[in-house]
Amino acid sequence: MPTASDRSRLLSIVQSRQNARVKELRAGFTHVPRPGREEGAISIEGEHLVQEALRSGIQFHAVFVRSGNQAALKRLSLPEEISVIELTPEVFASAVQTETPQGIAALIEPPRFALQDVLKGAQPLVVVVAALQDPGNLGTLVRSAEAFGATGVVVLPGTVSVWNPKALRASSGSAFRLPVVFSSLDDLTAMLRENKVVLYASTAESGVACCDADLTTASAILIGNEGGGLPAEILRMADERITIPTPGPVESLNAGVAAGILLYEAARQRAQRRSENR
Amino acid sequence: MPTASDRSRLLSIVQSRQNARVKELRAGFTHVPRPGREEGAISIEGEHLVQEALRSGIQFHAVFVRSGNQAALKRLSLPEEISVIELTPEVFASAVQTETPQGIAALIEPPRFALQDVLKGAQPLVVVVAALQDPGNLGTLVRSAEAFGATGVVVLPGTVSVWNPKALRASSGSAFRLPVVFSSLDDLTAMLRENKVVLYASTAESGVACCDADLTTASAILIGNEGGGLPAEILRMADERITIPTPGPVESLNAGVAAGILLYEAARQRAQRRSENR
Repeated sequence: MPTASDRSRLLSIVQSRQNARVKELRAGFTHVPRPGREEGAISIEGEHLVQEALRSGIQFHAVFVRSGNQAALKRLSLPEEISVIELTPEVFASAVQTETPQGIAALIEPPRFALQDVLKGAQPLVVVVAALQDPGNLGTLVRSAEAFGATGVVVLPGTVSVWNPKALRASSGSAFRLPVVFSSLDDLTAMLRENKVVLYASTAESGVACCDADLTTASAILIGNEGGGLPAEILRMADERITIPTPGPVESLNAGVAAGILLYEAARQRAQRRSENR
Repeated sequence: MPTASDRSRLLSIVQSRQNARVKELRAGFTHVPRPGREEGAISIEGEHLVQEALRSGIQFHAVFVRSGNQAALKRLSLPEEISVIELTPEVFASAVQTETPQGIAALIEPPRFALQDVLKGAQPLVVVVAALQDPGNLGTLVRSAEAFGATGVVVLPGTVSVWNPKALRASSGSAFRLPVVFSSLDDLTAMLRENKVVLYASTAESGVACCDADLTTASAILIGNEGGGLPAEILRMADERITIPTPGPVESLNAGVAAGILLYEAARQRAQRRSENR
């Protein structure tokens, strides 16, 4: 049974695909502002992501529920101030992107960070992403970055937006919390130098083995597209090249996996250093 | 210009969706035999995978090319004995699965391995996969397994097939070379015991830190579904639980990334051990 507050929220059912809020929801799935740069609300879909946005303190413009899916709404226990809009199944399906939608979506204001926000504490750990086209890989990378205590992610031009629905889903909510900032290569390298952050470029071969590189000091790790690797002009800016040693017959790793391994290695070295200093 | 041998191969263009070979191609994308168990040809798509299958010594039943895409055929430089079938764009599109097909596909015989084949050498390193539903994660795992010198992958019931087109693509050809074998839990644990292989279960928390576990001896690493973790009846069979330490505010990692990190850690420990013994 809907509670009084649930009822008061669902006064009318939107039946038109041309409703202004429905149009905003639809646009929010395709308009993907570059992190930290462009303005504009984004749309998210599914109970898990809406829940992650709520617990991350994200600002909501509205929550959209498909008629008949009030149970999901109850599970979310939304704060009173968030307005809820009910859509007929047809209108809901016309606005969202997945083929089998869960029946819950939201229009939210993405968090805005400045480039400097990716540095935090005495020994920041930053992931820099260049020319990564696969949204799943970017999202997975952001998720690993948060898990391993990285201070932020910098996205260079030519990389898919973290607000891309697939990237956001793969990030499992980490994109709502970790600073993910878009930057030019020049702005980034200037900031890293000023703050004495070592820029390591991850390459498939001929770099220092990552377990022999010192990732315990302020570090930024550059990850490129798995197919093409890092563009030459970016590789030139790196202080050192590091490689994940692969004893097997193939040296290729998925870009999201490579990022996860380098973050793990940095966290492992930092924990070891802390226990040695104790 | 087509060479004489190219011309002799393309005597006729298949214009019917009901052609027997076209039906086999179509079926090969959806019939996904369990590795090492069921019989049946499988279909692969795209120049990269066909190339990987060729260099992996896979047996080809036929290669299919979309009319107008003879250039791709030339790049592949197929051995004479492989028959090539040209399909009209409509017939080609009716048989393959991707929305923007590259215009090259093949019907192949998947390699067959016995369970015992995943153990090789004095210190085998095996990945055991339970209840992993995402084909991309399974393929990525198989790719990492080959890169880090694992001796094989065992797939327990409830896991997606490695011959699923998405899994195969994510494996980047590794599934053609590394033994990937389907097994029941009972058969697997019997074999591991008999061969004195330690079974480590990867859990999100409360296990021994993976860098403190000894992965240099004969080891099998159990990876579960990231959402549900490992089923209790499987967890019971493990000799030890290991956890990837994550200092960040979230402990969750993508299952493919978690497998990659544990394989990296095993390879790192083994390389260190070898250099100490020198």
